[in-house]
Amino acid sequence: MNEVTFSYEQLYQYTTGVFTHIGCSEKDAYTAAKVLLSADLRGIDSHGIARLTGYVRLWESARVNATPDIRITHETPSTAVIDGDAGLGLVVAPFAMNVAIEKARNAGTGWVSVGNSNHFGIAGYHAMLALEEDMIGIAMTNASALVAPTFSMERMLGTNPIAVAIPAGKEPPFVADMATTTAANGKLEILQRKNEDTPEGWIQDKAGNPSTDAHGLKSGGSLLPLGSDREHGSHKGYALGSIVDIFSAVLSGGSYGPWAPPFPAYVPMPENMPGKGLGHFFGAMRIDAFRKAEEFKAHMDNWINRFRNATPIDPDQKVLIPGDPERETEQIRLKNGIPIVGSVVEELRNLSEKLNITPL
Amino acid sequence: MNEVTFSYEQLYQYTTGVFTHIGCSEKDAYTAAKVLLSADLRGIDSHGIARLTGYVRLWESARVNATPDIRITHETPSTAVIDGDAGLGLVVAPFAMNVAIEKARNAGTGWVSVGNSNHFGIAGYHAMLALEEDMIGIAMTNASALVAPTFSMERMLGTNPIAVAIPAGKEPPFVADMATTTAANGKLEILQRKNEDTPEGWIQDKAGNPSTDAHGLKSGGSLLPLGSDREHGSHKGYALGSIVDIFSAVLSGGSYGPWAPPFPAYVPMPENMPGKGLGHFFGAMRIDAFRKAEEFKAHMDNWINRFRNATPIDPDQKVLIPGDPERETEQIRLKNGIPIVGSVVEELRNLSEKLNITPL
Repeated sequence: MNEVTFSYEQLYQYTTGVFTHIGCSEKDAYTAAKVLLSADLRGIDSHGIARLTGYVRLWESARVNATPDIRITHETPSTAVIDGDAGLGLVVAPFAMNVAIEKARNAGTGWVSVGNSNHFGIAGYHAMLALEEDMIGIAMTNASALVAPTFSMERMLGTNPIAVAIPAGKEPPFVADMATTTAANGKLEILQRKNEDTPEGWIQDKAGNPSTDAHGLKSGGSLLPLGSDREHGSHKGYALGSIVDIFSAVLSGGSYGPWAPPFPAYVPMPENMPGKGLGHFFGAMRIDAFRKAEEFKAHMDNWINRFRNATPIDPDQKVLIPGDPERETEQIRLKNGIPIVGSVVEELRNLSEKLNITPL
Repeated sequence: MNEVTFSYEQLYQYTTGVFTHIGCSEKDAYTAAKVLLSADLRGIDSHGIARLTGYVRLWESARVNATPDIRITHETPSTAVIDGDAGLGLVVAPFAMNVAIEKARNAGTGWVSVGNSNHFGIAGYHAMLALEEDMIGIAMTNASALVAPTFSMERMLGTNPIAVAIPAGKEPPFVADMATTTAANGKLEILQRKNEDTPEGWIQDKAGNPSTDAHGLKSGGSLLPLGSDREHGSHKGYALGSIVDIFSAVLSGGSYGPWAPPFPAYVPMPENMPGKGLGHFFGAMRIDAFRKAEEFKAHMDNWINRFRNATPIDPDQKVLIPGDPERETEQIRLKNGIPIVGSVVEELRNLSEKLNITPL
């Protein structure tokens, strides 16, 4: 598989250029590029620049508004509801997370449900915004339906990720960022490129039979909730994905369940949508609303050290702390550059030509 | 397997009698009995009256304080930290959940972390307290270490459950209540009584090898996090269990990770505990802090109906909404009585004799 390696700076310049070109303000273009590329930096390649062409297509089909009027439509001391005005989720989400942080400053915690938005990149980026404020950050989003609940033949939920970022002291923070499915869509894409099968328990075919076809979603199959099948707790993954859907879209007035809008612009919008756009949910909890921040962070260091040094099954594979692999990838890629697969590079060349901008 | 069936009223009289006998106030004994037996009613037999003897033993060994001074030690408009004073979790938890609800009335949401507590029964009971207030309820707790993180040979986490209860309109509420493991300990106990093996992916032996021995925990084995193995997302179940541990015990000053106190009174307390007792975490979110409650509940009805009517794989097994099986069991058991396995009935007879109280 041919790859081309770019520096973060190159990708950043290019990406801000594209967002400016479609009409974003400079400030919004910077934000959107930073959020999008955080996925590439952290090794979640499926959610980064590989999606840039997709975002442009959503704008072309008037499903994304490049100059949104993002508004708080309802609030209490610790909550807010935000209407994203069909803006890029990459811009709406940091706005909303900052409202949650602001609420937490005054009320101890802040909780923000967002409707009428679009895809927001990786959940982990938004949750991590809380860290430098000595707050715990939480971010989640619904997404177009690719996942079959336990016992269902139909796709009803998105991969609906949950991210939780928790500050530590001397240790790096604890950062969990996970789809509520057994395998994220990005892992399927890697196997598709290699023409390999998936392990059992990742997907089912369109009749609901177990499948290992990495291309199975294209023929009507579904991803499986975390747990894979009833015997291994798929009803728990289904419940988690549902909670994300309800907090993100039913609380905010977004469109939920099988009515969540699709990412590919060529897929028609669902009929009879019960709300507007995608939904997100953000939380910020000030550490010292519970306990002195220094005390908490010293205990987090103790927690992290104890878990990192748990006796491993294989001495060559230590126990990891959530966030370890992504942080390591980020350090390597900031130094050595970010490898982009050939097909994505090709797509971005075509995009540059179409938009008549300097190619990557 | 012989069973004896009792009415809820019989079990309630008996259980309040036991709690009064160990020194609880009448009010606390009623609360503790109601919380404990909600597990038997909802079919989570491992967490109900089967544990009553265990609670008494904790009191005998002075690990449970029957007359605790449960106190708020720190608070902000939307948060509180509570010291359970080594009280029964069955009493401390409803107290804390009511503080969360009270906070939500004023600030929109309420979040309470509790330390120095004990086992609190089923998480779902506490989360459901929010429902009649038109609030979303959240409850979680840490527990003694039985679970090995991904790649770990050692037990580091409890089964650390998460419950989320969400009100609906005409439909019954959405109530998820799940251990963050592939299988809850109670499911192992059922197989142990039948002398049957577990499915693969539930436990590992003390060297970290896959195992199907339902008695495996007694010989040093571990439960596996939701996802079972790395390839099927066990790092996500491990992250979820960790988040529960940190929110419940690191935020509150409870004892966390492998240092969480054990339930069986004969097991020595861990050395060098970094905090006091078990920890819990509760949340309450007022629906109308986000959206008109009637509007939200109408959409929840729509959500529930759509999911319940998703095309099933097997026409005889409809798609379920979280909480459906437990609610059905509760309706049946309130009417027909609650079956208790013979060994538990025997244990309770011995307890009655020892305490010199009227037997069940």
